[in-house]
Amino acid sequence: MATILILGAGVMGSALAVPAADNGHRVLLAGTPLDAEPVARMKRPGGVHPKLDQPLPSSVEILADEEVTPDHAAAADLIVVGVSSPGVPWAVARLNGLLRDKRAIAFVTKGLDRQGDRVVTYVDTLPDRIGAMTSFIGIGGPCIARELANRHPTSSIYASRDRAAAAFAADLMRTPYYRLAVGEDVRGVEACAALKNFYAIGVSAMQTRYLDKARADGQAKNPTAAAFTQATTEMAALCEMLGGHRETAFNLAGIGDLHVTVGGGRNSRLGHLLGVGRVVSDAMSRELAGETVEGVDTARTLATMMQGSATPRERFPLAFAILDAVLSDRPLSFRFEELTFA
Amino acid sequence: MATILILGAGVMGSALAVPAADNGHRVLLAGTPLDAEPVARMKRPGGVHPKLDQPLPSSVEILADEEVTPDHAAAADLIVVGVSSPGVPWAVARLNGLLRDKRAIAFVTKGLDRQGDRVVTYVDTLPDRIGAMTSFIGIGGPCIARELANRHPTSSIYASRDRAAAAFAADLMRTPYYRLAVGEDVRGVEACAALKNFYAIGVSAMQTRYLDKARADGQAKNPTAAAFTQATTEMAALCEMLGGHRETAFNLAGIGDLHVTVGGGRNSRLGHLLGVGRVVSDAMSRELAGETVEGVDTARTLATMMQGSATPRERFPLAFAILDAVLSDRPLSFRFEELTFA
Repeated sequence: MATILILGAGVMGSALAVPAADNGHRVLLAGTPLDAEPVARMKRPGGVHPKLDQPLPSSVEILADEEVTPDHAAAADLIVVGVSSPGVPWAVARLNGLLRDKRAIAFVTKGLDRQGDRVVTYVDTLPDRIGAMTSFIGIGGPCIARELANRHPTSSIYASRDRAAAAFAADLMRTPYYRLAVGEDVRGVEACAALKNFYAIGVSAMQTRYLDKARADGQAKNPTAAAFTQATTEMAALCEMLGGHRETAFNLAGIGDLHVTVGGGRNSRLGHLLGVGRVVSDAMSRELAGETVEGVDTARTLATMMQGSATPRERFPLAFAILDAVLSDRPLSFRFEELTFA
Repeated sequence: MATILILGAGVMGSALAVPAADNGHRVLLAGTPLDAEPVARMKRPGGVHPKLDQPLPSSVEILADEEVTPDHAAAADLIVVGVSSPGVPWAVARLNGLLRDKRAIAFVTKGLDRQGDRVVTYVDTLPDRIGAMTSFIGIGGPCIARELANRHPTSSIYASRDRAAAAFAADLMRTPYYRLAVGEDVRGVEACAALKNFYAIGVSAMQTRYLDKARADGQAKNPTAAAFTQATTEMAALCEMLGGHRETAFNLAGIGDLHVTVGGGRNSRLGHLLGVGRVVSDAMSRELAGETVEGVDTARTLATMMQGSATPRERFPLAFAILDAVLSDRPLSFRFEELTFA
């Protein structure tokens, strides 16, 4: 039995407690200051996280932010950071306060970061900001948290330059329903994990823009499949520019996660609204008020990177269409004539 | 203006007449002996193909099988074969009777073939069987015929070892809504076009096997995305074994066509039935009675190839699960524990 400390009791951090507990580990699930409500609910017997369908296994120990001590961190064989990208500054400060010894840390956080003028992944920036972190393990792949918590078959990849660290973490977390690959291309996994949110906005827009009355879901399928393919091609190229391997875009963290994100979640909901001609500010102030749509944050970061000559518009027509919509708050205009597939 | 002869007035052959006619070409759409009904319907003014939503452009000339002459073939700048795989012997015989001069021919037919004991693609066998064919052009990609006929944005790839021949055909057919890439990996396109039908059976089964009441469509998404990724990985490996390039599986003919096929069409309907525990013989004699499910034919051909040591079960768990279900008429048993993603 190992001890696993999960920082962040949002829906993903909480869901990861399920396979960890099912493997018989001691699981400490610690909320951030913003997780006060789910923490309070889950501390009650039978209490359920507001975004999950059922209580976590009763063995999971729920901690409020102020209850977490350096002793908890010292006891942990594995620390998993489960916050979303706006929670990164908090997680960095908290880890620096908690950690007394060197260790690997796994992150499910999805987003891009900056290093001076450059756009980079978290693996390029967080190791310097967290003094005691020896290895950064990135977690990617098609995982809707609520489905994982319901023990539906789910796949992910744990990647680190320190392959042994990634394998150690995956071995602790893997269950019959949580299938984990291990890899070394952590930059690629991090890049794809962020990019797929961004591209899901554009691909999902096709689902509401082109209709087919003969279908149960009312959606024409050819335009979405064309955009999915274009998104994959562009994602592979951007993944390489961010220091990852092309092939990573064609596996769990890329096409797998893009597949699950198109049609599910907040990025997709924004895409559906853009598909019918709405603009981002309007959607974000109404249907998506108060929500974090990570693909929008990724767009703002990515914009810097896309201004150079290495990313001409003719090679990234879908990216530029999404960027135009997000940055200029204009209706999404994606011309199929611009498709390249190469 | 060019003249385009389409052999086969099934739904795909008929749909291809739409972009061809919209480009101002003379289009001759010739039925096979099995297309007597759609041909009779479409010959009437305003008559609609039974599987399409609206009449073809009035400029399209509809021909019954017996009306097609060598003069039609001689007049054609491009011949497109639009039959499904059971129609190949007919198409071969008809072309050998019609053709007086050497020419390239494009095929939308999807399937695998045999050459002695080996499993191969049509590009390996048809050139020897059609004396006058100089170049084989394979057409692949995510194209539901009815949507193309409705002029929904649709993408495809035209591939040939004779790149100029593929480019010539694509230039004749390309419209603002029919976006065509041109490539040389015709073996890869042919391999993926067939394999995606086969894999769509297995991926679609996940959609009905794992349910999520919270979703409008009732489907859990993680299992399908996991299977989609696994299918892509296996398809890339099989594509290479059939003489194609891995990358082709990650583009229009592979992931693009797999995306559109999962959730739409007959292969997917069979998968949905297998997902809830039905067996193939039962599904084929009831819901799918009288239908051609090309993934089943592909499974039977593929079985030969999968018996060798180059295709161990641990590397192709999804393929073997589908093969077991099809060949042994057993319920589909796919264990997520077997997933490899590599």
